[in-house]
Amino acid sequence: MAKDVHPPRGMRDFLPVEKNRRDRVLTSIRETYLGHGFQEIETPALEDLERLTSGQGGDNEKLAFRVMKRGAELEAAIESGNGEDNMADLGLRYDLTVPLTRYYATNHAKLPKVFKALQTGPVWRAERPQKGRYRQFVQCDIDIIGDASMLAEIELLNASLDALTAIGLNDATIRVNHRVLLANLLEQLGVPEAGKGSAMITIDKLDKIAAEGVVAELEDKFDAGVAARAADWLRAIAGNLPIPAELAEIFDAIEARFGAGRLRFDPTLVRGMGYYTGTIFEIEHPESGSSIGGGGRYDGMVGRWLGSDVPAVGISIGFERAVDLVASNDDESLSIVLVLDSAVPSVIGNALKVQQQAIEAGYRVRLEQRPKKLNNLLDSMAEQGFASFATVGEEFVNFGELSIRNIAN
Amino acid sequence: MAKDVHPPRGMRDFLPVEKNRRDRVLTSIRETYLGHGFQEIETPALEDLERLTSGQGGDNEKLAFRVMKRGAELEAAIESGNGEDNMADLGLRYDLTVPLTRYYATNHAKLPKVFKALQTGPVWRAERPQKGRYRQFVQCDIDIIGDASMLAEIELLNASLDALTAIGLNDATIRVNHRVLLANLLEQLGVPEAGKGSAMITIDKLDKIAAEGVVAELEDKFDAGVAARAADWLRAIAGNLPIPAELAEIFDAIEARFGAGRLRFDPTLVRGMGYYTGTIFEIEHPESGSSIGGGGRYDGMVGRWLGSDVPAVGISIGFERAVDLVASNDDESLSIVLVLDSAVPSVIGNALKVQQQAIEAGYRVRLEQRPKKLNNLLDSMAEQGFASFATVGEEFVNFGELSIRNIAN
Repeated sequence: MAKDVHPPRGMRDFLPVEKNRRDRVLTSIRETYLGHGFQEIETPALEDLERLTSGQGGDNEKLAFRVMKRGAELEAAIESGNGEDNMADLGLRYDLTVPLTRYYATNHAKLPKVFKALQTGPVWRAERPQKGRYRQFVQCDIDIIGDASMLAEIELLNASLDALTAIGLNDATIRVNHRVLLANLLEQLGVPEAGKGSAMITIDKLDKIAAEGVVAELEDKFDAGVAARAADWLRAIAGNLPIPAELAEIFDAIEARFGAGRLRFDPTLVRGMGYYTGTIFEIEHPESGSSIGGGGRYDGMVGRWLGSDVPAVGISIGFERAVDLVASNDDESLSIVLVLDSAVPSVIGNALKVQQQAIEAGYRVRLEQRPKKLNNLLDSMAEQGFASFATVGEEFVNFGELSIRNIAN
Repeated sequence: MAKDVHPPRGMRDFLPVEKNRRDRVLTSIRETYLGHGFQEIETPALEDLERLTSGQGGDNEKLAFRVMKRGAELEAAIESGNGEDNMADLGLRYDLTVPLTRYYATNHAKLPKVFKALQTGPVWRAERPQKGRYRQFVQCDIDIIGDASMLAEIELLNASLDALTAIGLNDATIRVNHRVLLANLLEQLGVPEAGKGSAMITIDKLDKIAAEGVVAELEDKFDAGVAARAADWLRAIAGNLPIPAELAEIFDAIEARFGAGRLRFDPTLVRGMGYYTGTIFEIEHPESGSSIGGGGRYDGMVGRWLGSDVPAVGISIGFERAVDLVASNDDESLSIVLVLDSAVPSVIGNALKVQQQAIEAGYRVRLEQRPKKLNNLLDSMAEQGFASFATVGEEFVNFGELSIRNIAN
């Protein structure tokens, strides 16, 4: 009897049809970014655990899968009696940003002054498994390191909107804010220094608890003065908001390219990561309840490993959420099943030749020996995405002259 | 000062030019296999450790990176006092074959009766780092599960020779043998049952220690009779060898397609893995001192998880060795650097429009603000593989009318 076999909890196998779809979407995104002059890189899946847990990864650091030491080092760790903390030396990356900053520090001498990086690949997080949340999932990041000007933001947003369009998400929009505007706002509301983080958490909830909820929570956390000023502010931003000077250059350039509506200034956008220092972005789509990506400027982070300050800004498309939104239209590639009339050498020889001709004509060509029930085979092949079939016999017939039939009929 | 930052020992960062080259080679191999009707799948990088160390992986099982348990399970493992063996529950895959057999057992109900699988991706082995051997490296496997006939072998070899040709390795050849022939040989030499494994190890060394060495070692291990019969056999196979009946069908079909010379019958080919049950293959290239891939039939292995016997055969291209052999010819994709005359909004707006036009014309287009020394920028861009440049100013000029200059000049 079959044993009960599954991939590890929270991780997925991909069947061929789904794998094919994921590959098409990822390839579209990558090719769009490559077209925009981003350069693709790759880092190992593992990083030194010390680096993964040095404070750059925020809450995700706690979710790193830890890899045990090996051999003599493991024995020494066990003998030291320091327990589990000493037993692991590597960890699986939980995002692509910490590895990117490490990569830049390692390789910057061989990279151009302004480094426009594209990185896609799996990341791992030991989260409690739940619907729609996985322990291995794919991220697609672009980052520009070494450009302090707004041209970097403009390039990221321009390329990302093109990438979203390339995969059919023409309705995706990007909300934009700036940490300086948030800081000014908190000053203006009279939030005390120590309460600023907490106040931002409240403001970030506007979508969920509405203006009244935000005002009430601020009154609880601070005082009636803060709450009243917040109420005034929320009323003011409910109207038609002018784009602040800090963001004008970005909006001008993107609207000139795409028209209005793809970017939206949102003074309540906070984003959680503590490392953002300037602009912040969040990608939205009307069919998704949660954001499908985001990013921002993190000028302090790269310098951490390098020892000198380097400006940096990045944006990440959440591949798993994006791919769920992409219409699962059938693969349009040509595909055919060649059914061998028998298994004698001459038929096999003919089939290999016809297959070669069909591949050259752009087909994906699968060989099958004729089973007793041809219909069962064809049904199975249709499920696997094959669109047509033809039979090959002892007499050689060129691919172009074969009788090709649609499987669906 | 910069901290000393590196990827983990034995693992690699890929710079953009190298990443681009690797991607082109891998894409060629994958597209060739997809053309031959193989279906691409993906499994997680992690598998349950118990499955990775159940005897299917041979010596590689000892090289699995082990991932520590988390939370309450880790605490329980520490309290149990059973030491390190109980502290890990997952492992990084060390090959793609063990995950494939697990995948087939999990998903066979949704797969066609004959499953032709393509899987590429990184694997991890905690080997002692040395030149040319890495702790994370890429494998490219195709396997046919559910077909006991030689058509499966023919398809694998046919597709692999096409894939090797697609990446420019037209001189690659495949050595072929059959475990049944090896078993018959050992009988004929009079090797006792218990010594058969050891005798195969000796025969496998023929390349290194020559016929005399093999004969001497067999005499040491067994007796003068075995050694004398081996000497006769080695003399016999030094001549022009007839293709044995067990392999005739394969050679007929492949030679009809490719002509003679791409397959070679090698009665001394052993291959280490204990799980092979029939044909065995090894891919060679005149410019490589070691094999660049291999495989064989492993009919007993899939049934292990499934509980019923399923025939299977596979072949793997060792991507790291193959990619080193591929001529590092320049990327032929069109590429251009657009240099912005200034950072005023109208120039940025023009640059975005021209960039869009150039992308549509098939270019990879990088924007750069004009630096003080244009030549330094252009030298750096040439190193990164960009072939041409043009400047964009305040007056809008369509891409087709821009003055495009070669960077090399």
